Amino acid sequence: MGIRITGTGSYVPSSIEKNEDFHQHEFLNQDGSSIDHPNEVIVDKFKAITGIVERRYVDKQLTSSDIGFLAAQKAIEDANVNPEEIDYIICAHNFGDVKADTIQSDILPCLASRVKHSLRIKNPKCVAYDILFGCPGWVEGVIQAKAFIKSGMAKRCLVIGSETLSRVVDKHDRDSMIYSDGAGATIVEDTEEVGILTHETASFTYDEAYYLYFGNSNNQELCKDTRYIKMHGRKIYEFALNNVPLAMKTCLDNSGIDISDVKKILIHQANEKMDEAIIKRFYRLYKTPVPEGIMPMSIHKLGNSSVATVPTLFDLIRKQKLKDHSISKGDIIIFASVGAGMHINAIVYKY
Amino acid sequence: MGIRITGTGSYVPSSIEKNEDFHQHEFLNQDGSSIDHPNEVIVDKFKAITGIVERRYVDKQLTSSDIGFLAAQKAIEDANVNPEEIDYIICAHNFGDVKADTIQSDILPCLASRVKHSLRIKNPKCVAYDILFGCPGWVEGVIQAKAFIKSGMAKRCLVIGSETLSRVVDKHDRDSMIYSDGAGATIVEDTEEVGILTHETASFTYDEAYYLYFGNSNNQELCKDTRYIKMHGRKIYEFALNNVPLAMKTCLDNSGIDISDVKKILIHQANEKMDEAIIKRFYRLYKTPVPEGIMPMSIHKLGNSSVATVPTLFDLIRKQKLKDHSISKGDIIIFASVGAGMHINAIVYKY
Repeated sequence: MGIRITGTGSYVPSSIEKNEDFHQHEFLNQDGSSIDHPNEVIVDKFKAITGIVERRYVDKQLTSSDIGFLAAQKAIEDANVNPEEIDYIICAHNFGDVKADTIQSDILPCLASRVKHSLRIKNPKCVAYDILFGCPGWVEGVIQAKAFIKSGMAKRCLVIGSETLSRVVDKHDRDSMIYSDGAGATIVEDTEEVGILTHETASFTYDEAYYLYFGNSNNQELCKDTRYIKMHGRKIYEFALNNVPLAMKTCLDNSGIDISDVKKILIHQANEKMDEAIIKRFYRLYKTPVPEGIMPMSIHKLGNSSVATVPTLFDLIRKQKLKDHSISKGDIIIFASVGAGMHINAIVYKY
Repeated sequence: MGIRITGTGSYVPSSIEKNEDFHQHEFLNQDGSSIDHPNEVIVDKFKAITGIVERRYVDKQLTSSDIGFLAAQKAIEDANVNPEEIDYIICAHNFGDVKADTIQSDILPCLASRVKHSLRIKNPKCVAYDILFGCPGWVEGVIQAKAFIKSGMAKRCLVIGSETLSRVVDKHDRDSMIYSDGAGATIVEDTEEVGILTHETASFTYDEAYYLYFGNSNNQELCKDTRYIKMHGRKIYEFALNNVPLAMKTCLDNSGIDISDVKKILIHQANEKMDEAIIKRFYRLYKTPVPEGIMPMSIHKLGNSSVATVPTLFDLIRKQKLKDHSISKGDIIIFASVGAGMHINAIVYKY
């Protein structure tokens, strides 16, 4: 018995927000003090670290569940499955539906119910629920689909990662430039052929639970009751570097696959320098140089769209939409993610 | 192999909000028009239908994750397990942490991460995630724990249902009287002895997805960007009556247990008249009269605390805190729930 991803889809918002669009923002330090450098310098430094040149924002009339639905439609079509034969719809996100120019997260009903409603699926046996697990939510959704299939509770799951971070950013925070919107979806099925070989998940909460949090604007004159996505960037960087390579190694070692057989690593698009450092340390654990082209990146043009980055990246590669990257049947892929919680996960996958 | 609930805990907030406390509210119809009857009549009618006499609200300084943690502590103690040996923490809720006198849901990080942090669990292999599944979230969390255990991915799960609906009610809506706060938690373990016999889940989204929704105040002068928990009560009533008994019957029939062997039905405490009608129709499907004392109720004193009602009710009975109700080893129990999504689920359980 195998568990395979038989279809993928993604929604990349059409509106492009370029780095230059931030030149007019009033960036402040966390304590509200002004920053000594001009915005052009701040933005250039940001680009040098994160690799981000531009990011995507959804149009005003769209919400997270809308774009999750659009990605889901494509994944269903790609897998060529009958929507009425889907057993689970698992939707990963972090903030629910936040309408443009409002501050409330709308998660009633859950987004999976909304997506199922939009897909016009009638079958009540198709269970629709949301998972909150930080940026690793989509990877974890696939792991949960594996549990349902392995336990005999499902044959076919639709796993979605959808997020509109543009709706929860603090415009006075330089970190706001990282965040982006997007959605990725996949069909995960019970198959004859093997797909998922192993998985690994870890939740670090003892010291790390609030490394990413919901906090006030850096502009101390704004309402204290309004909160935004916030992070302790340096702590996250160190945490990720210390723990993600180890989780990936455990996952790979458990699969019995040799490091030299890994063809691609699809890692959460959080920050280019951080992702490069993680991969470098991962290969160092095997005393092996990092192979050329092992880590496809979409962050330059798409930014960090949280739960959407990994499934979108996978979809782009499968559909030959990412320059210089392709995958062939039988290739070994590692999916890996890290984010709010702090959670880390990885899947070793035979394509 | 069996999967059993080996410990329970609950947190019942200390602050009591009596029906009389609503006498001064300005209730309005959905279109903003005033209601012809005096509040005393409205409140009496409300009591006659729902059975609710009083409900509980958390203290100002507490949030949903705080009370989820307090219930979890008790469940861990009750099960006498080492917290470091818990493989999953699954936290069900609907609105995240909403601080008193604010309108934003805080779900970053997820509430399970916060609970794990408060429990001071160090083991990173303990995976902490949230599930959004309407009021049936705790029952569904137990079903997900079953999937993890059955697939070999876990031995021991902590499943929490925690909610502070007092933070999201529209005070101009009569339905606001239904909602309450509370938390229930359980340890679900891989055991020699059988516990969960069968489960059944259904998500009705084609016409029903928005029967419970996030909407504006009945007071049309209030800000349109601020939304509250809202429901189409009559539609829900009819929906529940048509579908919950059938789901319970499928679950019971799959278990092979005879209707006459069912000792207790622990149903989501939504509305007394609705719950009575559901049970009546359930027994009618078996052409059997409703047995005396089959359905313990906590709604009179505790209201509808969403995901917390079923685990709290179970905890109260196990600990001899619910008058006239007890359960003994070997008794057959049905857990059943219905709520936002619209989702329905049931578990047939051998105590």
